[in-house]
Amino acid sequence: MRREQPDFSDPAELGPAALEIIDRALAEDLASGDVTSRVAVPAEAVARARLVAKAPLVVAGLAVAAAALRRLDLAVNVELLVRDGERVGVGTILARIHGSARSILAGERTALNLLQRMSGVATLSRGFVEAATSDAVAARRKERAPCRITDTRKTMPGLRALDRYAVRCGGGHNHRNDLGAGVLIKENHIRAAGGITAAISAARRHAPHTLRIECEVTDVDELREALAAGADVVMLDNMDDAAVAEAIAITGGRALIEVSGGISEERVAVLAGLGVDLISVGKLTHSVPAADISLLFEPPGGWS
Amino acid sequence: MRREQPDFSDPAELGPAALEIIDRALAEDLASGDVTSRVAVPAEAVARARLVAKAPLVVAGLAVAAAALRRLDLAVNVELLVRDGERVGVGTILARIHGSARSILAGERTALNLLQRMSGVATLSRGFVEAATSDAVAARRKERAPCRITDTRKTMPGLRALDRYAVRCGGGHNHRNDLGAGVLIKENHIRAAGGITAAISAARRHAPHTLRIECEVTDVDELREALAAGADVVMLDNMDDAAVAEAIAITGGRALIEVSGGISEERVAVLAGLGVDLISVGKLTHSVPAADISLLFEPPGGWS
Amino acid sequence: MRREQPDFSDPAELGPAALEIIDRALAEDLASGDVTSRVAVPAEAVARARLVAKAPLVVAGLAVAAAALRRLDLAVNVELLVRDGERVGVGTILARIHGSARSILAGERTALNLLQRMSGVATLSRGFVEAATSDAVAARRKERAPCRITDTRKTMPGLRALDRYAVRCGGGHNHRNDLGAGVLIKENHIRAAGGITAAISAARRHAPHTLRIECEVTDVDELREALAAGADVVMLDNMDDAAVAEAIAITGGRALIEVSGGISEERVAVLAGLGVDLISVGKLTHSVPAADISLLFEPPGGWS
Amino acid sequence: MRREQPDFSDPAELGPAALEIIDRALAEDLASGDVTSRVAVPAEAVARARLVAKAPLVVAGLAVAAAALRRLDLAVNVELLVRDGERVGVGTILARIHGSARSILAGERTALNLLQRMSGVATLSRGFVEAATSDAVAARRKERAPCRITDTRKTMPGLRALDRYAVRCGGGHNHRNDLGAGVLIKENHIRAAGGITAAISAARRHAPHTLRIECEVTDVDELREALAAGADVVMLDNMDDAAVAEAIAITGGRALIEVSGGISEERVAVLAGLGVDLISVGKLTHSVPAADISLLFEPPGGWS
Amino acid sequence: MRREQPDFSDPAELGPAALEIIDRALAEDLASGDVTSRVAVPAEAVARARLVAKAPLVVAGLAVAAAALRRLDLAVNVELLVRDGERVGVGTILARIHGSARSILAGERTALNLLQRMSGVATLSRGFVEAATSDAVAARRKERAPCRITDTRKTMPGLRALDRYAVRCGGGHNHRNDLGAGVLIKENHIRAAGGITAAISAARRHAPHTLRIECEVTDVDELREALAAGADVVMLDNMDDAAVAEAIAITGGRALIEVSGGISEERVAVLAGLGVDLISVGKLTHSVPAADISLLFEPPGGWS
Amino acid sequence: MRREQPDFSDPAELGPAALEIIDRALAEDLASGDVTSRVAVPAEAVARARLVAKAPLVVAGLAVAAAALRRLDLAVNVELLVRDGERVGVGTILARIHGSARSILAGERTALNLLQRMSGVATLSRGFVEAATSDAVAARRKERAPCRITDTRKTMPGLRALDRYAVRCGGGHNHRNDLGAGVLIKENHIRAAGGITAAISAARRHAPHTLRIECEVTDVDELREALAAGADVVMLDNMDDAAVAEAIAITGGRALIEVSGGISEERVAVLAGLGVDLISVGKLTHSVPAADISLLFEPPGGWS
Repeated sequence: MRREQPDFSDPAELGPAALEIIDRALAEDLASGDVTSRVAVPAEAVARARLVAKAPLVVAGLAVAAAALRRLDLAVNVELLVRDGERVGVGTILARIHGSARSILAGERTALNLLQRMSGVATLSRGFVEAATSDAVAARRKERAPCRITDTRKTMPGLRALDRYAVRCGGGHNHRNDLGAGVLIKENHIRAAGGITAAISAARRHAPHTLRIECEVTDVDELREALAAGADVVMLDNMDDAAVAEAIAITGGRALIEVSGGISEERVAVLAGLGVDLISVGKLTHSVPAADISLLFEPPGGWS
Repeated sequence: MRREQPDFSDPAELGPAALEIIDRALAEDLASGDVTSRVAVPAEAVARARLVAKAPLVVAGLAVAAAALRRLDLAVNVELLVRDGERVGVGTILARIHGSARSILAGERTALNLLQRMSGVATLSRGFVEAATSDAVAARRKERAPCRITDTRKTMPGLRALDRYAVRCGGGHNHRNDLGAGVLIKENHIRAAGGITAAISAARRHAPHTLRIECEVTDVDELREALAAGADVVMLDNMDDAAVAEAIAITGGRALIEVSGGISEERVAVLAGLGVDLISVGKLTHSVPAADISLLFEPPGGWS
Repeated sequence: MRREQPDFSDPAELGPAALEIIDRALAEDLASGDVTSRVAVPAEAVARARLVAKAPLVVAGLAVAAAALRRLDLAVNVELLVRDGERVGVGTILARIHGSARSILAGERTALNLLQRMSGVATLSRGFVEAATSDAVAARRKERAPCRITDTRKTMPGLRALDRYAVRCGGGHNHRNDLGAGVLIKENHIRAAGGITAAISAARRHAPHTLRIECEVTDVDELREALAAGADVVMLDNMDDAAVAEAIAITGGRALIEVSGGISEERVAVLAGLGVDLISVGKLTHSVPAADISLLFEPPGGWS
Repeated sequence: MRREQPDFSDPAELGPAALEIIDRALAEDLASGDVTSRVAVPAEAVARARLVAKAPLVVAGLAVAAAALRRLDLAVNVELLVRDGERVGVGTILARIHGSARSILAGERTALNLLQRMSGVATLSRGFVEAATSDAVAARRKERAPCRITDTRKTMPGLRALDRYAVRCGGGHNHRNDLGAGVLIKENHIRAAGGITAAISAARRHAPHTLRIECEVTDVDELREALAAGADVVMLDNMDDAAVAEAIAITGGRALIEVSGGISEERVAVLAGLGVDLISVGKLTHSVPAADISLLFEPPGGWS
Repeated sequence: MRREQPDFSDPAELGPAALEIIDRALAEDLASGDVTSRVAVPAEAVARARLVAKAPLVVAGLAVAAAALRRLDLAVNVELLVRDGERVGVGTILARIHGSARSILAGERTALNLLQRMSGVATLSRGFVEAATSDAVAARRKERAPCRITDTRKTMPGLRALDRYAVRCGGGHNHRNDLGAGVLIKENHIRAAGGITAAISAARRHAPHTLRIECEVTDVDELREALAAGADVVMLDNMDDAAVAEAIAITGGRALIEVSGGISEERVAVLAGLGVDLISVGKLTHSVPAADISLLFEPPGGWS
Repeated sequence: MRREQPDFSDPAELGPAALEIIDRALAEDLASGDVTSRVAVPAEAVARARLVAKAPLVVAGLAVAAAALRRLDLAVNVELLVRDGERVGVGTILARIHGSARSILAGERTALNLLQRMSGVATLSRGFVEAATSDAVAARRKERAPCRITDTRKTMPGLRALDRYAVRCGGGHNHRNDLGAGVLIKENHIRAAGGITAAISAARRHAPHTLRIECEVTDVDELREALAAGADVVMLDNMDDAAVAEAIAITGGRALIEVSGGISEERVAVLAGLGVDLISVGKLTHSVPAADISLLFEPPGGWS
């Protein structure tokens, strides 16, 4: 299996964007204070706690969770014990926490909601990436670059920056970030533009030269039209394996080939083996089981 | 099966809160404009389109989706054909849309992301609610009020208002909205407070009188302590069926009984049959498969 | 007199919420800079200053005032000499300040406006709390818990978090924080719902189980209806002492009793002596004389 | 008594600034929805209601209150029956309201909090203005322009625009809006600048030419220094009546004279009679009794 | 001269983004109201006014200016008489305005500041576009597509959306919108990455497939390295005409060629004639003379 | 030449206002991250860089630029080598930078856009100030205070605080900050108010006493009317030199004289020599050539 070292340090993406998400989530939970802690936990109580994986998972968002815990009280200390992108087993301690009990309790749920979401995305992505880059698939692809698993714009509203980062933690690639960061002519555009050729040639004339032109096609006739009009990338929508194989042959390297639409891990292996360049998977961000992670205070007698 | 008519018209919840979520999601997608539509779709193009269910689902968020489509261009017309809370089958047309093609394309993904999330939550919730309120269960509960399925604070960061509304569309009830809207003494609070009795009695002295005091317990000894200290509600955490039955007997109506922790639809039926008052289900909002819904432009030859 | 130790350290309440209020107040005063200091005070001038009580008062908001002074210039040093909740006499020095003269002058009015408001609320609250918890009253209440003085939602728009905190500094309790944090069925709801029984029973079916149901009543017939419908708390609106006494007897401990409506310190003592559980006082936050506090720069010859 | 017609229609001041205050206040109360109305009031219930004065008062903020009621639901109709600046007696109906019961209940408290604050400010201001502009005072002032009652920057944090407007509704004038809108050299500036002459001459060199230079003085020596240095306005701080009279004589029209500091309505009449130009009164905005106004739903049998 | 019809109707770009800029600009000017209009202009005064070009210019931003005038008062009517992108002569009336005098005066400066900026950008851009697309140049380019004049990211902070739109009104094209919408490897990146080949090949592996890879080069050796590494676009930085001609020959159509760096209209004609694909011009947005436009109220005797 | 030492340390103006502008500009450029740095520059790469003047200029905004570079990563170190207000020659190193290459690249363009704008304003202003305060002019003015060059409200939308500060760095003075900070009756106000006398006398009655009354006049008749009505400042609009000289004579020191309207550096010298008090120059902020400044990474072999 060939996978590049993930690299997660874009200060812009994990800086203000993440803080804004954290602040909004804290506000949602704390707009009228934390009444339970105020009435039941002494102000001066100090706690030791741990973030613990309760199932196997790929970690993503640990620094985000730490920021959520420290956002209201910088005196809370969080020691990270693993790195985003690592796969861990049941019982792995992900971080140790120390500080005011009230402060930790105020941020606990927000931190977990973010960490469980992001690790859920990373874990799901890793499965697809491994299916697309197994040794068996690589052998079938020969000289081709590895098939990319990419996300889509089907991210959770308000969480796109974190969702995309988590996909990368899982080994996936990002598709265009937003409607301004890529030209992707889909079926609805084609209907509105009056056809594939009209849409692509207008895009060629007007689009910023920094962007490739990608066009969705649903059969080989549309594929031929898109290639003739100068598409840089074609997205094969809901074609079966035979049609995909034919499309690859027709394209002959003139454009990148993306496959999209309700694809399982099993079919990823097949498609990657056929030689497609990209497979975009909506469920990486739209249908994500949360990773199972707990924040536990030290029990009265100390950690067992 | 007994289920109340859902009622979704809190202007505060579906007013500014929903608009803020919509605007944030649109901003995320459109911060640098919609380059594809600008370069490939004529400014004057007008489109007819439909929102269509591609799988059976319980609808939630249709007005939210309509608002997303109209937020940038009030001249886009959206006619809603079903109501939130309705169960629909494959192929049901949920709404008809008419207006500027560019405007519809600009809001399409945001509208779908919200609608698919909310309908996903509602569909998932409905399953649990039906399990908890079947005629068989009702027969076993006799005179008891129906067992409530409730959400938790494990909502998607930034989407809590919509998630909670969608749970209600599915027939579920809401737990406390946020840390200021309910006293729930969990294991970490108990550890920080020095015990169940200490925590509950402090809460009794200080909490606003408008709030009940709920306390998590993990066995019957803790249950007895919580009841003696005056808990209004007890949350049984990860107890097996026998322990739950014993807890119900011990409590004897002195407090409401909530069960929580990794519960399937099957176990919901069992627990509801035993007579618990509430079952809170984290996955209603933390592990939600998106409902499958498409926005389709009218094909060149008209709708078939 | 029995009064609990106040406890003011909710990081959520005094964290982002207070900073947002401070920033807004600073912006209001400084949107176009501080022209007087810029033109009349040298940039390098350094000052020593004091916050001084010019009348007896209960302090609240000292950390908020310090934050206002330091918000634009963290090099301003503020040493707090008393704690929120303390009663102080004329001439008490509340804090010592040292730093850039321009920075202190820029924040002076904002710091004072907040501190004088909050201390005004605390001072007013303390008077009512002392009336409700005097030894004489306690003797009449016998075994009953102390009568609570609570605030209302009649807080200054935008300042609710600080107003509620200041009430607690004065020894008072908080009523529900907002419309989402408690069920309080008032006369207008009853009219809209079609009666007390209809309103309470609908609330019982739909309200989150974490909330008690409180209902306003104006005479003993309504009281009996509310109790029969299952109210957890009844609010006696504008009843005279005899009616209150009768209401207490009728209720017989089945519900908490709150009295509300234009109540003086004198009547508080009477009502508390009769045995009501709660008295809510709107004027604690809607009609507050500012506490008299000054910020004084060291005079040329030093402090006398 | 001579008083100009008040004039309240600055679109900037009562436009976005007021809406921002309204939205913030609504958010404070409705961040987690209105649970009482949702559970106890039918979604389709429609109500008629009235805003009624329960004590004599000067109205201010009626349009603001209407905006608060309509902000969440433009279908709520509010008919204003009096104008800001009018004095009304007990029982006067200020406005009639018609619309969704839930919508009205959601905005009721916010509307009242704003209206009661603003009318409180206007009512308090009117008392001082009448004391300063009685026929007796006017006779003593002879040819002089009427003595102005002005506000200060001691406004409620976040509400300055509304407080200042309400002062004008009461017949008062505004002092500088903020630290950028006027040069006022106070005692702390003088200490930091090294003296009155230094401060005023620096201000003369650097201040925008659109601003007058005002300087606080505490005795006649300081007054002479300030006049010599070219002050356009002098503020007499805590001087007794004799000293004020002497100051007026010394100034001889070379500068405007403002008196400030803990002034009652009675002393306003004296000072105005002596001939001062301006009296600034902090309590107009820092210690305001709320005006007593109710919002009442139509009773079951209709309005009596 | 060949120039496409400009097309300015991206609802995302001219929707919320423009309104946010307008609101911010209004807030900057009106945070403490419009004191002149309040004190000197009667509330009921109504005015007719005109926007008039006082020099030849290309119009851009007329709808933005209208929105600024109407933002505080929707009753202000603005009739637009020309379209963005039109060239107009001295004295041309661009729009007629009718409404409250105070409202128009409140928005006048903001409307003009925006309109004069945007029309300034459009006018400047038009000059460069005409130089690049004259018939003489077109003849020299033969079959090549027209040379694009593009903007850069050297836009006025906070005004990027409007600046880019105005460039298009002038006939120019947009370069990448922001750092997320294009890969442009500049000299500083090359130094940090350790060379052109390293930078381009890393970009090929990691960049979203929707983006082309552009690389800056300063001489023909670097050009050859960039082409070999697979650059899709090369940016020739500060090369003289001979070097540009050589670069075009070396590239031979394998990549698009952009020229950048301190370029005058005269040199644009030369470079376009040589056959470069794109010329990016920073001064289109960083050094813009405002277009001369006035807003005039109808004089007492009516328009002459 | 006589020029006061500039003084730039208003914490309000360069504090939150500047940070808000910086954050907005960064958001504009980085909303979807910095894709080039993420894909082409190693996360661990560290760089040394310099800000270098590429033309003679007056520096303004160096601390603002440093803040932009450090906003996303406080570990970036910026050492400022000159002070705002200094004139520097070609090649002057303005600052040295050290830190993460990705962080520096993320902030580079924003920092430069701000610094080049502000230094452009300061450089332009300095030219006008020097023309107005040359020894030759000073000799002609004799005892008069130096003629002020002032800005206008024709600032770049959203950048007013920085523009005004930069004008002061260039030696200029600020006119009123906004519509609430000064009374300036212009021709449109006069038309709406029904004449100069009406406008000025209404302003006298209603304006805060902290503000002077300034009135625009277009000929000597209007000047006489304005003076008779009590204007504190007159603005001579588009009068020729002879008319200005006559206006000075007529005014005879009763009011300050401002000249405005399309004025070159040459004419500034003439007008200042005639004795006007103020000259306001719109182009200082509306038509500003950016100052030429680069941010350069250390070349492979070190700085030459």
